[in-house]
Amino acid sequence: MDYRKRIECVLEGTLSQTGSGSTRLVEAMRYSALGGGKRLRPTLVYTVGVALGASLESLDDPAAAVELVHVYSLIHDDLPAMDNDDLRRGRPSCHKAFGEASAILAGDALQALAFERLAGPANQLPEEAVHRLAMVRLLAAGIGTSGMAGGQAFDLESVGRKLDVSALQQMHRLKTGALIETSVLLGAAAAGVLSGPKWHALHEFGAAIGLAFQIQDDILDVTGTTDAIGKIAGADAAHDKPTYTSLMGLKGAKAAAEAQRARACAALTPLGTAGKGLEALAGFVIGRAN
Amino acid sequence: MDYRKRIECVLEGTLSQTGSGSTRLVEAMRYSALGGGKRLRPTLVYTVGVALGASLESLDDPAAAVELVHVYSLIHDDLPAMDNDDLRRGRPSCHKAFGEASAILAGDALQALAFERLAGPANQLPEEAVHRLAMVRLLAAGIGTSGMAGGQAFDLESVGRKLDVSALQQMHRLKTGALIETSVLLGAAAAGVLSGPKWHALHEFGAAIGLAFQIQDDILDVTGTTDAIGKIAGADAAHDKPTYTSLMGLKGAKAAAEAQRARACAALTPLGTAGKGLEALAGFVIGRAN
Repeated sequence: MDYRKRIECVLEGTLSQTGSGSTRLVEAMRYSALGGGKRLRPTLVYTVGVALGASLESLDDPAAAVELVHVYSLIHDDLPAMDNDDLRRGRPSCHKAFGEASAILAGDALQALAFERLAGPANQLPEEAVHRLAMVRLLAAGIGTSGMAGGQAFDLESVGRKLDVSALQQMHRLKTGALIETSVLLGAAAAGVLSGPKWHALHEFGAAIGLAFQIQDDILDVTGTTDAIGKIAGADAAHDKPTYTSLMGLKGAKAAAEAQRARACAALTPLGTAGKGLEALAGFVIGRAN
Repeated sequence: MDYRKRIECVLEGTLSQTGSGSTRLVEAMRYSALGGGKRLRPTLVYTVGVALGASLESLDDPAAAVELVHVYSLIHDDLPAMDNDDLRRGRPSCHKAFGEASAILAGDALQALAFERLAGPANQLPEEAVHRLAMVRLLAAGIGTSGMAGGQAFDLESVGRKLDVSALQQMHRLKTGALIETSVLLGAAAAGVLSGPKWHALHEFGAAIGLAFQIQDDILDVTGTTDAIGKIAGADAAHDKPTYTSLMGLKGAKAAAEAQRARACAALTPLGTAGKGLEALAGFVIGRAN
């Protein structure tokens, strides 16, 4: 199953049903959400959910929700007051194309849309409502002060300061790790797995690939080209940001990414054969070139 | 019951349990959310919910959620790229006190926190999960492109342009009306009222007081002092924003506010005696001096 194609179609559907007081606002949301990106987070939702027996249809809402949140965070992170990035996915970032006000509002509206999708239609069966509410809780926690927003604030406060590897890890665990972990857990929750050994195994798996993802991101900022990664290469060094490569060297960072991949695969044991398909995901996260 | 005191206490509790990767982020959220404001939206949730038989405890989560969303919207609306307001509730606005990056993130995290509160603790009874999920859906719709964010985008696009009264009304219905209407409906949903004549009556009531509120806001921008309203008086005229007073004159605007108050009270008929306590709310909305 090509999950990238599926999520593209799901997002297109969500964003074309969106009524609005402002065409420009919806255009800014569509510009940022459609037609690009690795779609790693929805892929995690689908792959984990299917491995645990959920139907693809039941995974469309959490997959869309987590990607909408990811897109909102990219839009806000790129703003001049934040990372001030002019390029995203090989195109002008949202505020360059639509202006800052529209970019701020597009991010806000995408977050709200994510929760609207996750809540789903009215008149659900009580059992499904329980699962969906658990997903709302997971997603909200992944975004907030103990998740993505907390990590981004931590990151901004670290510019020009010396961080050790443990502080860097803590920062990334929040900034990117939290939402990747959330994606894994949303897949589990949609399949009705909300506690127990499988839940804990996926927690550990999600934490490991979240970290592996960020280490690989830092590696690509050094080894990739602007063309291949779709954002300005070398931006971290230019902003004097602490990274895994600046703290551990390129070789050390590659070893650390591989160690997290191994940790992710080891965590899958309690899932038995259902875990096999997830091993490939861990390999994909550190093998990616963009 | 003093709902302002109660919501202050509820918000204080929510914002002191908030763990974070950044103390500064939580400080920015607390600065904007605590110690001020009319608390109109939580008051609506409590008053409507109690009128329909809900317990105060069951209304704390929706009351907190809607106020957290309102606070996030004030922070983002005040940003330089948006309305560029330096003063809010008689103090420097969030970005003046904490910087733009923290203000953007504080708004984002407050939105997420609102949904986290609304989802409530794990292990709820299925019936409560159904009500809470309905509230998530209502709040998300009130924020997004067909609600507050859509209205703010519409508003920004209207600066310096001529709007007629009907376009102005449509803009305000989204920008401020949607969240006020949502507050009323959250109170109803928490009491298990999700459809039927009472639901429709409250819809109409919410729409009318939402509009009355905005007309009164425009009136206060002309007649109030910066000191009394806690933000810069005359800012709308200075920004060349279309307002009810600029389109209808002060007298016309006052008549329009009174007409919406009467519409709100008339809408309450299907609620019988339960509606009596809500009439005072409509009076409060247009009687307020700040």
